[in-house]
Amino acid sequence: MGIAPMRSGNNDYENIRRPHVIVFDVNETLSDMSPMEERFTDVGAPAHLAATWFAGLLRDGFALTAVGSTARMADIGSSLLRSRMAGLSLTCDLGEAVDHIMKGFAGLDLHPDVVEGVGALCRLGIRLVTLTNGSTDLARGLFERAGILGSFERLLSVEAAGAWKPAPKAYAYAMSQCDVQPREAMLVAVHPWDIEGAGRAGLGTAWLDRSGESYPDHFRPADLQAETLTALAERLESIE
Amino acid sequence: MGIAPMRSGNNDYENIRRPHVIVFDVNETLSDMSPMEERFTDVGAPAHLAATWFAGLLRDGFALTAVGSTARMADIGSSLLRSRMAGLSLTCDLGEAVDHIMKGFAGLDLHPDVVEGVGALCRLGIRLVTLTNGSTDLARGLFERAGILGSFERLLSVEAAGAWKPAPKAYAYAMSQCDVQPREAMLVAVHPWDIEGAGRAGLGTAWLDRSGESYPDHFRPADLQAETLTALAERLESIE
Repeated sequence: MGIAPMRSGNNDYENIRRPHVIVFDVNETLSDMSPMEERFTDVGAPAHLAATWFAGLLRDGFALTAVGSTARMADIGSSLLRSRMAGLSLTCDLGEAVDHIMKGFAGLDLHPDVVEGVGALCRLGIRLVTLTNGSTDLARGLFERAGILGSFERLLSVEAAGAWKPAPKAYAYAMSQCDVQPREAMLVAVHPWDIEGAGRAGLGTAWLDRSGESYPDHFRPADLQAETLTALAERLESIE
Repeated sequence: MGIAPMRSGNNDYENIRRPHVIVFDVNETLSDMSPMEERFTDVGAPAHLAATWFAGLLRDGFALTAVGSTARMADIGSSLLRSRMAGLSLTCDLGEAVDHIMKGFAGLDLHPDVVEGVGALCRLGIRLVTLTNGSTDLARGLFERAGILGSFERLLSVEAAGAWKPAPKAYAYAMSQCDVQPREAMLVAVHPWDIEGAGRAGLGTAWLDRSGESYPDHFRPADLQAETLTALAERLESIE
């Protein structure tokens, strides 16, 4: 239940194989970003600005990627907050408000299915790594607080790749670091744009559908779809 | 008043010259998109979803641009609405809701300063064109309803360029269509990512600061900044 191969994925349903390496996206895929809304209301900004801001952060990061440039996610995040909140009536200084919101990233927790799901995947003998458009420190903090850091072979960031996902260079960097071919790896993400990039780069793909939204038509579908990481682990256990 | 050269732009303040061609971005730069919020509330969705959706539309368009692909803006817009609103309790069918919102694009009006600003720029003998990530039909409709279509030499879309702005190919296409060198042209946009792309492609740039937001640090600043198109026209009249 809650897991299905998606229509016309990269691979036929029968051809999906258990990957040697799982490459996890981090923000929203593993971390629950919903407490960020409270950070906005703490400083007098509307809660819904959190979603618009994060979409804008990715929009601007991808714009830089499209022109062959790059920037740190935290820098874009802060800069966009300063720009966007400049016209708002806040309960504190703009600088303090930006700091308060950005510090929220460091205090996030994992989604409730992650600890069990990571354990199950680990027991299958699959090598687990992360590849984030943010910093590896955030992933390390998330896993340390949850006590599962030891389940991960390595934590990677596109900061060392010179290009954000979904650019091919980002996935190629991860493959090189793990010393595997793309076909031996599977990206797991909640973001369809990440599925698109990883699929183009030759990786298998699994879309975590946590929000109840449907998969958008403008990106290539994932090879697998699951509502939780535990459901994905069960599915991968059933295939070779 | 309301116009200033920006810090450390592509050109020194003294070196800014009147362009032979102005390339206008269309959505939000010329069209007032605020009525889109009402389209969302019409179907029972929250008004603030309009901003998140449009940021997400650009995010996904730029993700495709970053992997060397492209799609029609209207297709991404519809597909993303279907995906995003799938979990909402709407006052009508999901399909009807998507149609109702997308049709809102075709009924938008120009910002109040545009007719006068375009007239003033036209009288300066500057050739006026548009370059949109959307369709040329939307720009044509906007100008026809306002009676200023005749002021524009041509209406261009990245659909014919094979890549969305801010990719270099999009601006190169416009330069080729206008048969001018990038240094003879100036992009006018409200979007900092468009300023970044055009500046990299060698065009002059003017940022329209309609929202009261500050310019974000992660993009290169524009050569000129103005609150309205009429203020920009006055500034360009004062230089050669």
